[in-house]
Amino acid sequence: MATLILTKEIVRDMLQMDEVIKAVEQAFCDWTDGKATMPSKSYVRLEKGDFRAMPAALPGAAGVKWVNVHPGNPAQGLPTVMAVLILNDPATGYPLAVMDATEITAYRTGATSAIASKYLARKDSQTLGVIGAGKQAYTQIIAHAALFKLQEIRIYDINPANMERLAKSIPQFKTVIGTIEQAAASDIVCTVTPARAPVLKSVMVHPGTHINAIGADAPGKEELEPDLLKKAVVVVDDLRQASSSGEINVPIAKGLYSASEIYSTLGEVTSGKKPGRTDPQTITIFDSTGVAIEDIAIAQLVYGKAMMGEHLSVELV
Amino acid sequence: MATLILTKEIVRDMLQMDEVIKAVEQAFCDWTDGKATMPSKSYVRLEKGDFRAMPAALPGAAGVKWVNVHPGNPAQGLPTVMAVLILNDPATGYPLAVMDATEITAYRTGATSAIASKYLARKDSQTLGVIGAGKQAYTQIIAHAALFKLQEIRIYDINPANMERLAKSIPQFKTVIGTIEQAAASDIVCTVTPARAPVLKSVMVHPGTHINAIGADAPGKEELEPDLLKKAVVVVDDLRQASSSGEINVPIAKGLYSASEIYSTLGEVTSGKKPGRTDPQTITIFDSTGVAIEDIAIAQLVYGKAMMGEHLSVELV
Repeated sequence: MATLILTKEIVRDMLQMDEVIKAVEQAFCDWTDGKATMPSKSYVRLEKGDFRAMPAALPGAAGVKWVNVHPGNPAQGLPTVMAVLILNDPATGYPLAVMDATEITAYRTGATSAIASKYLARKDSQTLGVIGAGKQAYTQIIAHAALFKLQEIRIYDINPANMERLAKSIPQFKTVIGTIEQAAASDIVCTVTPARAPVLKSVMVHPGTHINAIGADAPGKEELEPDLLKKAVVVVDDLRQASSSGEINVPIAKGLYSASEIYSTLGEVTSGKKPGRTDPQTITIFDSTGVAIEDIAIAQLVYGKAMMGEHLSVELV
Repeated sequence: MATLILTKEIVRDMLQMDEVIKAVEQAFCDWTDGKATMPSKSYVRLEKGDFRAMPAALPGAAGVKWVNVHPGNPAQGLPTVMAVLILNDPATGYPLAVMDATEITAYRTGATSAIASKYLARKDSQTLGVIGAGKQAYTQIIAHAALFKLQEIRIYDINPANMERLAKSIPQFKTVIGTIEQAAASDIVCTVTPARAPVLKSVMVHPGTHINAIGADAPGKEELEPDLLKKAVVVVDDLRQASSSGEINVPIAKGLYSASEIYSTLGEVTSGKKPGRTDPQTITIFDSTGVAIEDIAIAQLVYGKAMMGEHLSVELV
């Protein structure tokens, strides 16, 4: 027995967005069908950043992702987020692989948005608005491109350099660098900012829009005007996590929104227990906080591919 | 930057019990002094076993231990417990090392018992009774030998083969394979069994004995007759964890013992906030459930030593 060691480069080479989307969608169905086990994330909060332990089990795979968020890292030439994932055989506990999960984290966040859009956005969506052009924006775009015929990507960021950089990284798409109003007037809008006060206002959003609210993943963070939540159909990845740290956490804390107004979880929609979009005029919102089943599902996919190649393996335990 | 990969063999070669004891004792002091961060363990319970994620941070080190318990593994030639630990720089989150923590788990459990004995057992303790001669018994013995002049080790197990095997593994000590009463009549007694009903009865224990209750680490497990707890000075590693899954969990659930009767935590004793043993006649009990700071402290020690040698390192993230 040996444990595969898979570096960031190797993992990146194995990630194909269409396969990732399929694996993550299956994980949400399995979770809703009671075939997954996932305790809450646990946080270690330190002076310069934090760490999150994200354990989960799915049919055929168990593991933990251990990921940091250190906002001061870029000044030292290091990424803000770095993640390592241990993948185990659930039947014996044997550690099958230790792999970089930094790329997996970016891919799964994009994939989960696209899955939400698949069920909640209008089928004929052609324009994608991206508000916040940081690291996570790229995978939002390529994931949506795997499921939608995108005619135009509309990019907005408070930092013009970020917009330019993102547009350059996706030469295969027609991009528009513009105002937040332009980005918001898209069929599908992804908010991918670290905002702590609403940036996307209700008045900017047209009927029939689907919004993926990605940025809010900790108490105090919010990207959408609460009025938007009130008039939209809201779907969350995880009820408990969304209420405490997702897009709805601040409005709930302020008494402007109630968890009872949430329409469903993503898994209920993907598994057909609740219908997705039923009316072309409805505004829909997916509140994404990120859950470990997404990471474990992709790690399982990566491991399966890695087993067919030659990679570093060690007798770790 | 690169991440060290340290296999079980390499880690085992670096573990020296006296150094381990020092590191773990410091970790308990740091924790009590507010210099450590440690959320609760989180469990993933599956059909054939479970996994525990144990994150923590200490001055200069952060990390997570990910460890399984699969009781059916030995029938397949695999260990019941296998552990992998990711050690990070707390200032940046960078993963410094990924290492086997199976040996670390065994060493830290022994080391923590010996630290408890250092403060709670009589200084002139010469006999060590070990009840339960499985995998964890060995490190209990070598850890105590690092701090006490042991004249005799008294071993008891329901399985005679286990007793023989343990005695053979410690030829440097005078051993007695005997009854549970003989083992119980020692200056220091370690209970290291998976018992779910008391095996160590109050009547077997002499005044002045110190007991390390190691086995109970999950709801429903108990090794000591509740009457023993009632008449002893009880010290725990972690108040919350001991109450829910340590030796005192069953007596508390049955209303036979109250958490308010606990004398102190181990960290309060090691840091001098509470005196240890004050009377040669008192029976003292340390209720050990295992906490992540123990593992992280040892991982930090191992990493420091590994940095001085040549070991496999990869650009993991």
